[in-house]
Amino acid sequence: MTTLYGYFRSSAAYRVRIALNLKNLAYDQAPINLVKGEQRDDAFLAHNPQGLVPMLMTDNGIRLTQSLAICEYLDERYPEPALLPSELEERARVRALAQVVACEIHPLDNLRVLKYLVNELGVEDDAKQTWYRHWIHQGFSALESMLSREAGSGDFCHGDAPTLADICLVPQVFNAERFECDLSAYPRIRRITENARALDAFRLAAPGEQPDAS
Amino acid sequence: MTTLYGYFRSSAAYRVRIALNLKNLAYDQAPINLVKGEQRDDAFLAHNPQGLVPMLMTDNGIRLTQSLAICEYLDERYPEPALLPSELEERARVRALAQVVACEIHPLDNLRVLKYLVNELGVEDDAKQTWYRHWIHQGFSALESMLSREAGSGDFCHGDAPTLADICLVPQVFNAERFECDLSAYPRIRRITENARALDAFRLAAPGEQPDAS
Repeated sequence: MTTLYGYFRSSAAYRVRIALNLKNLAYDQAPINLVKGEQRDDAFLAHNPQGLVPMLMTDNGIRLTQSLAICEYLDERYPEPALLPSELEERARVRALAQVVACEIHPLDNLRVLKYLVNELGVEDDAKQTWYRHWIHQGFSALESMLSREAGSGDFCHGDAPTLADICLVPQVFNAERFECDLSAYPRIRRITENARALDAFRLAAPGEQPDAS
Repeated sequence: MTTLYGYFRSSAAYRVRIALNLKNLAYDQAPINLVKGEQRDDAFLAHNPQGLVPMLMTDNGIRLTQSLAICEYLDERYPEPALLPSELEERARVRALAQVVACEIHPLDNLRVLKYLVNELGVEDDAKQTWYRHWIHQGFSALESMLSREAGSGDFCHGDAPTLADICLVPQVFNAERFECDLSAYPRIRRITENARALDAFRLAAPGEQPDAS
């Protein structure tokens, strides 16, 4: 059986849950409580020295890490429905949209970074919120512009079916809403998110639907 | 002609230079001076609303962004020499190693983030250096462990030829050296970097070799 080591609020684990659901793959969940620091327990580090979730244990016993690498693996192993288009330039566009979230927004706003700001740099709560929103707005402004003016956009980030880009976008929107970011300047992002959330694959992957949700 | 919009010290542009060289592709360079803020000039933003380098203008006039997306595009369009192995699990491993750098280290240590720490949060130089080294050590410790104990490692991150993982690792080591991080705890990373630097594709992609180096 495939097992996902994740955490209900982890945005990167959320991506993998969506991908597994889109591929219609059954999986077990092994929750790792990031707030309690379970990702740094020896038992977990022995399997994943990164001390990060998600980790996917495949049905043939291979441990995979890094959410985008896991999603691409799932897409290569289970080609339908495709998470990437078939044309090279379109694949590059979808990956770039995904990476705006995965390389430009999320790394700056995840829990361990916010903890460092507070604990090591003594940043006050207001300034932490401002930091959080700053990187959301930087990234979402770029994404909104790309989604609005590039021909490839449709009901979803690329065309009219979900791709790797939506898999990254929707969890980031969830986080932005949780931190009460004003998303009114991003109508395209909001419409795409609404379309995605109407699908079971996205709805059932949401943090509140997970067994470890609290 | 293929044109790379980059900056000599940009770690992400450096990755693309290595990939272009490994594929033996000729390209022009259009330097965007990040220190002068040229990435936020209207002329550049009109082409890339992310305001980031690298951007690759392909020979058929398509603009591609995000370094990993660009490298995967090059690998799909010009399959030899391959930047990813052919086996699914190995491809996932190489992508994960690349993403430890591209999603866990580099986003926290790049210029715009360091500027935010100093200008918006009033972080002193010492604390900025500590921040920089902290994320290097977090990521490199994980990488060293993965490279030491996983069977796939060889003279390079995966096997005995360069892959996407080395393309990400070597520029990150360059940055770490520039910030005088102590890399003595990472013998495997150092050996792989040395092997990579012995290749022209890596040597000629180094910041000091670029037309805009200063």
